[in-house]
Amino acid sequence: MGLHPAIAAVRGGVRAVLAPLEPGGVVLVACSGGADSLALLSAAVFEGHKAGLRVIGATVDHGLQEGSAEHAAHVVAQMAALGADETASARVQVDPAGLGVEAAARRARYAVLEQLREHFGADAVLLGHTRDDQAETVLLGLARGSGGRSIAGMRRAFDRYYARPLLDVARADTVAACLAEGIEFWDDPHNSDPGYARVRVRQRVLPVLEDELGPGIAATLARTADQVRADVEALDALADAAYAGLARPEGLPLAGLDDLLPAIATRVLRRAALDAGARDAELFHVHVSALHRLAQGAISGEVQLPGHLTAYRDRAHLRFRPTAVAG
Amino acid sequence: MGLHPAIAAVRGGVRAVLAPLEPGGVVLVACSGGADSLALLSAAVFEGHKAGLRVIGATVDHGLQEGSAEHAAHVVAQMAALGADETASARVQVDPAGLGVEAAARRARYAVLEQLREHFGADAVLLGHTRDDQAETVLLGLARGSGGRSIAGMRRAFDRYYARPLLDVARADTVAACLAEGIEFWDDPHNSDPGYARVRVRQRVLPVLEDELGPGIAATLARTADQVRADVEALDALADAAYAGLARPEGLPLAGLDDLLPAIATRVLRRAALDAGARDAELFHVHVSALHRLAQGAISGEVQLPGHLTAYRDRAHLRFRPTAVAG
Repeated sequence: MGLHPAIAAVRGGVRAVLAPLEPGGVVLVACSGGADSLALLSAAVFEGHKAGLRVIGATVDHGLQEGSAEHAAHVVAQMAALGADETASARVQVDPAGLGVEAAARRARYAVLEQLREHFGADAVLLGHTRDDQAETVLLGLARGSGGRSIAGMRRAFDRYYARPLLDVARADTVAACLAEGIEFWDDPHNSDPGYARVRVRQRVLPVLEDELGPGIAATLARTADQVRADVEALDALADAAYAGLARPEGLPLAGLDDLLPAIATRVLRRAALDAGARDAELFHVHVSALHRLAQGAISGEVQLPGHLTAYRDRAHLRFRPTAVAG
Repeated sequence: MGLHPAIAAVRGGVRAVLAPLEPGGVVLVACSGGADSLALLSAAVFEGHKAGLRVIGATVDHGLQEGSAEHAAHVVAQMAALGADETASARVQVDPAGLGVEAAARRARYAVLEQLREHFGADAVLLGHTRDDQAETVLLGLARGSGGRSIAGMRRAFDRYYARPLLDVARADTVAACLAEGIEFWDDPHNSDPGYARVRVRQRVLPVLEDELGPGIAATLARTADQVRADVEALDALADAAYAGLARPEGLPLAGLDDLLPAIATRVLRRAALDAGARDAELFHVHVSALHRLAQGAISGEVQLPGHLTAYRDRAHLRFRPTAVAG
């Protein structure tokens, strides 16, 4: 009997990511106990051992649901049973103040994963996000509407060690792989709580897109994300270089800005505003595009930016100063 | 009594587009008889006459629906009643063979608009696409999945003369403007025929997005389109320049390709393949990305492209040749 195609798909994604690692290397797999991350762990054990790697399974207990400690202990036992050479469970404190619970949990999770990576000396950390997660991320980004950046989806690899080997694998394939391997997986109740925008995208938006625009929409969205990400990364790199070449103590030379393509000029202006103290989370396209019009001379006067910053033209330069507060 | 805000919104969009025209200039308004284009025509008459312009209303009879000739005659009468200085009605033949009826109708429409523009010596041709049309275009593009290009939406201006002054105006505002001005408008039955993907996006997809991801999704999608378009135009321009600098009779130098950012290298390779005779409509990202891997040495051998074209490496160059046909 041949290998189940879902198992083959999961292993294929993992194999490609592990290929550059040398025998004796260490790979850490982040595992929630869901079908995606258990299928990932199982494939990492298979492919990792074949390549002479040590495979560590790690689970993070966010302490957000009742019984989460027992759940983490169960995942640890599962990871060991699936052949992980070592396992770890880490409890984190999620402080949702300011960020919201999802973002706070993500930040706490990555902080502890990074500690575990250092502890085990891991050469790679694998995350179980699937093609469907990517499609959901693209749609959530579309709804935020902050341009290419917001629809570029999740990165395949980041921060040198982190990788998402299943971004081309359907979530249904991770479920099928678990079923075919007899792996019992956990359905996180958060994954069906329509209080989360991501859950509404999964349960209500993607099925409608699929019905009305044809099957395969998740794959299509994930493919778009890949291309848009390449575009955004290229423009960011070009803008970084342009900014480094232009920035002067006295401001940004208007003539130099004028030579840039609009997509690069707006990125240079965003960087300059952030460097001058504008507040990132509140600096929207509307601000940057006002800065661009100011630089082009299409509007006159000053532009107010979040973070109590004022942009103005001073002869040949665009400059920033703290906004004067009436007192 | 103040000006109705919907009329103000429509006129504002038109005013910005007409601003660069000199008194005595001529503006042609394409008018289907729907709320969007009648509101556009009315605003163009108001703003155009204030600016000393002649305003021509033009309607195109595609001959696709019963009674289309009577409808065109009615639109002509309406345009005259709304104050157009001159009106025109043009009948076109739509040949859907190969293109599909929507694309064929669009092609025929633009061909005749261009004839009318030349005939009247118009300095600008205004098209009535709204922010909602733009949002629908973005979603249809997403479903095609050909990267940034497909979600960049419709251009605000193109081919020197053509402009879409209502891309920031909601369709509902064009309806409200017509109602406020007592303009009777036509509901094209095609606009509610779910046989068209665009109609399904309008009737079934956008309302779900609005419900699940929050109000204002059409505006958000239109804003994303603007930013993505600027990105795509910048990268296309940079790739054009890179291609012009790299292309040699013996092929594309691999070393030069290697120096390019991936988003630019893939665009250069696409251009090179098209110049070598690849078939545009069938040249997908999967082909271009195979070309890129071939150029990088990540795969060896040859890459087959649509249009019976083979790409191969020849020492320091990437080259193309017609695919040998077995005979």
